[in-house]
Amino acid sequence: MTKKVSGGYNGKILRVDLSANTIATEVIDELFCRKYLGGAGFVTYFLWKELQSGIDPLSPDNKLVFALGPLTGGPLPGGGRNCVGAKSPLTGGIAKSEVGGFWGAELKRAGFDAVIIEGISPKPVYLWVHDGEVTIRDAGHLWGKNTKETQASIRAELEDDKVRVASIGPGGENLVKYACIMNGLYDAVGRGGLGAVMGSKKLKAVVVKGHKAPKIADPERVKALRQWLQANMQLVQNFREFGTGAAMEVYETVGNLPVRNFRDGLFPGVKNIDAPTIKNTIRIRMDACFGCPIRCKKVVQVEEPYAVDPAYGGPEYETLAALGSNCGIDNLKAIAKGNELCNAYSLDTISAGSVIAFAMECFEKGLLSSQDTNGIELRFGNDEVIPKLIELIARREGIGDFLAEGVARMAQKIGRGSEEFGIQVKGLEAGMHEPRLKPGLGLGFMVNPHGADHECNLHDTLYVGGRPLEELKPLGILEPVPVDDIGPRKVGLFRLVQLVKIVFDSLVVCEFFPYNPEQLADATAAVTGWDTGVLEQLRVAERILTMARLFNIREGFSAADDRLPRRFFQSTNDGALADKPLDPAKMEKAKSYYYTLMGWDATTGIPTPEKLEELDLI
Amino acid sequence: MTKKVSGGYNGKILRVDLSANTIATEVIDELFCRKYLGGAGFVTYFLWKELQSGIDPLSPDNKLVFALGPLTGGPLPGGGRNCVGAKSPLTGGIAKSEVGGFWGAELKRAGFDAVIIEGISPKPVYLWVHDGEVTIRDAGHLWGKNTKETQASIRAELEDDKVRVASIGPGGENLVKYACIMNGLYDAVGRGGLGAVMGSKKLKAVVVKGHKAPKIADPERVKALRQWLQANMQLVQNFREFGTGAAMEVYETVGNLPVRNFRDGLFPGVKNIDAPTIKNTIRIRMDACFGCPIRCKKVVQVEEPYAVDPAYGGPEYETLAALGSNCGIDNLKAIAKGNELCNAYSLDTISAGSVIAFAMECFEKGLLSSQDTNGIELRFGNDEVIPKLIELIARREGIGDFLAEGVARMAQKIGRGSEEFGIQVKGLEAGMHEPRLKPGLGLGFMVNPHGADHECNLHDTLYVGGRPLEELKPLGILEPVPVDDIGPRKVGLFRLVQLVKIVFDSLVVCEFFPYNPEQLADATAAVTGWDTGVLEQLRVAERILTMARLFNIREGFSAADDRLPRRFFQSTNDGALADKPLDPAKMEKAKSYYYTLMGWDATTGIPTPEKLEELDLI
Repeated sequence: MTKKVSGGYNGKILRVDLSANTIATEVIDELFCRKYLGGAGFVTYFLWKELQSGIDPLSPDNKLVFALGPLTGGPLPGGGRNCVGAKSPLTGGIAKSEVGGFWGAELKRAGFDAVIIEGISPKPVYLWVHDGEVTIRDAGHLWGKNTKETQASIRAELEDDKVRVASIGPGGENLVKYACIMNGLYDAVGRGGLGAVMGSKKLKAVVVKGHKAPKIADPERVKALRQWLQANMQLVQNFREFGTGAAMEVYETVGNLPVRNFRDGLFPGVKNIDAPTIKNTIRIRMDACFGCPIRCKKVVQVEEPYAVDPAYGGPEYETLAALGSNCGIDNLKAIAKGNELCNAYSLDTISAGSVIAFAMECFEKGLLSSQDTNGIELRFGNDEVIPKLIELIARREGIGDFLAEGVARMAQKIGRGSEEFGIQVKGLEAGMHEPRLKPGLGLGFMVNPHGADHECNLHDTLYVGGRPLEELKPLGILEPVPVDDIGPRKVGLFRLVQLVKIVFDSLVVCEFFPYNPEQLADATAAVTGWDTGVLEQLRVAERILTMARLFNIREGFSAADDRLPRRFFQSTNDGALADKPLDPAKMEKAKSYYYTLMGWDATTGIPTPEKLEELDLI
Repeated sequence: MTKKVSGGYNGKILRVDLSANTIATEVIDELFCRKYLGGAGFVTYFLWKELQSGIDPLSPDNKLVFALGPLTGGPLPGGGRNCVGAKSPLTGGIAKSEVGGFWGAELKRAGFDAVIIEGISPKPVYLWVHDGEVTIRDAGHLWGKNTKETQASIRAELEDDKVRVASIGPGGENLVKYACIMNGLYDAVGRGGLGAVMGSKKLKAVVVKGHKAPKIADPERVKALRQWLQANMQLVQNFREFGTGAAMEVYETVGNLPVRNFRDGLFPGVKNIDAPTIKNTIRIRMDACFGCPIRCKKVVQVEEPYAVDPAYGGPEYETLAALGSNCGIDNLKAIAKGNELCNAYSLDTISAGSVIAFAMECFEKGLLSSQDTNGIELRFGNDEVIPKLIELIARREGIGDFLAEGVARMAQKIGRGSEEFGIQVKGLEAGMHEPRLKPGLGLGFMVNPHGADHECNLHDTLYVGGRPLEELKPLGILEPVPVDDIGPRKVGLFRLVQLVKIVFDSLVVCEFFPYNPEQLADATAAVTGWDTGVLEQLRVAERILTMARLFNIREGFSAADDRLPRRFFQSTNDGALADKPLDPAKMEKAKSYYYTLMGWDATTGIPTPEKLEELDLI
């Protein structure tokens, strides 16, 4: 509790122009670091400040920003992550996505806090960053290779099997609109098509290695936080035992499990694909990100009928639902294979699964014919199509080329009412949770600048089911707010949780750690030496979220884009939500109140000049 | 950092109906304590919930509420205070005022967290609360006595010279609109005329004694906070050495010192009346409130020409300015005498000084004649009038009866433009700081539910001059906000500081302690066992402030009442503000943005239904 004003903390940015073949480093000062924190904050800042409006996301004008936070690579668990962002080829708005693994920690040790990639290389290259040294290396021999081959080749040629590789596979190279970037082989910068941006730049990989341990201002304070966590591991017991996906059976019962493109509710096969079943069948071990005591990552192995390489880890909940229940599939091995292929080819499993589910419904409705699908029987439950389609999508072959465009563009082309069941917001396919069960999540899907991100669910699990009310008390919520409430109380809480999540994403620390807002500020102070606090971090988060809003407005987005697909205003065919459509009037009212709380115009959603000034944004 | 949900904390209320001669106790549960915290929160809640609108503040319908907070009487320094509130006879709106001393801590030890006084006693009484036992005792023999005599008599008859006495003198008995309640002999429940409410109820004193030490959930955590404070006493060094009023010379230079009813700026005599001079002349020692290591309270003694009894302490800054520079008086002994008399008669020194200054200006302008003033030469700088007028006011004799009504009523009666220099908001005479120098303070004067309370200055010293920028960083303010700025940045900061101050007032802990928001939450958690945090406390503060707003609206107040007297839109005659009037358009804009940030209608200032629901107020 000593008061220190400044810890001498600052940051270093690596800026690489692939068109000009130039490399530069820039120091960012302490005030900048404090105003934008890191991770999502840095990414949003650079995209907002440096991109021109209206640019083609796959052109040299786009920039791909990798950013770390003050906790990255430090002794506090949860700090193995990094954030990546760009203008999204999928949504046309701002994209950013956080990812686990070891890459972020390693970049920090290599001496950088952010990497900004500009321009387009005339030929495939990869970036090699080691202990402050940076080289652009030829990647011609790697182009076309999957992520495992890529990582192995690079490690071989650099003669170091510990270098950390963030790379793309054919999905990114072929500009699949929802291609991801893989940290190692099973941690994905998943959402928004950032792998396509990387592919457009002919950047196969960013490879990092470093030896400089991050400076810690107050090691004793860090130790106290570690000890607290150690003493409270029971709070993450479920993640430790099962990883994600432990509660799928309950989800199905209460109506949180998407089934057949969010059309149905009942899915008796859920028991075949959930995390406990995985543990008892195909799981061979659990793995962890950098310095993490939770170890929530499944590693699975399958021999037949689909050979699934454990090098690619195993399916998380979002994947289990997206490639599983949401496609009507309860064949765990098929899902595991789909997961492996997405990781190999660098495809976002959520978007891939959503695209397939959408195509299945179109096929069953006769909006896509066998001719359209190259003879593939695109029916719900047909698990054989999963690996087949992922291959086609990654290579943009046949129907895959169409599916590579994402649900929004597909629906636009198909027309005939298909938009109504195209489950996306702003072009981003929705995460695998049910807004009809949790209208707070629905609001998140609506107003999130990046679209219907699965991370929006964290806004809601915090106060619905996922965590006990006790953990909400630090947020000032002392009495239960009903799950189906979407009144002002829920909206106020939603906004608060959303802002706290931006703090997580900017620090960039894993949300699975049950840090409360005080502890996030405490951790920041311990590492940076800043006398920071919850109110400062909330203000930073508000600044970041408003910048993202401004980015989208500059690209032509309006309040009309903050809307859910029509399906959510209809009931599911069966299950717990058979009589529970969302009320559009209530959702619009909630949206308007959210705008008000954010200091945005209640109707247009445009930040008021006063709010911009208050947040130092003008 | 252990997580505890509930500490089993709750509270006990003593409810006394003086009309019915009944005494009852009520338990308030933990959720209630957590939602309203204590002090200002409890007071505001009970007044909002229990008072009928439109009642006469001096009728049996009014209630006088004394409330403690979770830190009161505990081992953490700054916890010797209590809050008192009622419908104000001065403003007609909600009044509440915090006070130091020992009374609050003693009430806690006597087993209560709040006392609610209802009705009117047929004859003078006092309340005797000791270790959970309560009796209503005759005070016929005390009526008419000053506070020193009262305290001495009560201690004698209870045969305990350690009982703590909150009492009124003749000022309260005679229903002077700005009569105060004295904790002991030199700690005043100063603002809003709460002493008159007590007088109207024929309640001479509330006397307390107890032996039950408050429960502490986590003594180790309390110890850590104490140690931090011990190690950071340099932050309050000025208060330790001089008490309040150390910087008056600087105030005069920069334009923060009110001179001659806020008319002028230059006041060369300031050096005769400031705290360093007091230290070197009439000060005989410093004194402290319950358990306080700062010891900021001056005790002065004077023999001639005015005999000043050290039993009544010494003048604080507000008194030095109100009875001194603002009346054009630089005779320290006259001011000390005035202070003594106000404490003896239970008159608020700020309102008393303001009333005299206003009368002086009226007299000099010919709006009051010698006939009106019983021949008193009511001219600025005439120090002889100070003791004379205070005597008359307390007894409501002659001109004193008129002056006892307060500036707003006087101006209304005098008319002829006098309202323009009646320095009050909502009827409460302004604290002794300059809104023309600090428009943030001006906004505080405008929107504070209790009127132009001197405490509003704390909102502003936090970010202007009083404390270094470093201390604002926990509030998220990383770059200086200019003192004369009243744009959105300042308004946002003002609101935040205002809410944090409500946390101080509800806990009820002394603002001189440099606790940051995290430490306030930490202290609360340590004492109560709640897993509370900054966001919860901010939400509680928002709830309390909005309830106070609702109270005033119920009494007919509107946005039009959130306005400064015209004088502040004119320059001072000389000094630093000779060319610095406030800009009315800017102040109105700031007010409107403040309403917006509070979730109140930007024009009417009425809380929106959504905000009320969000705050659990409907």
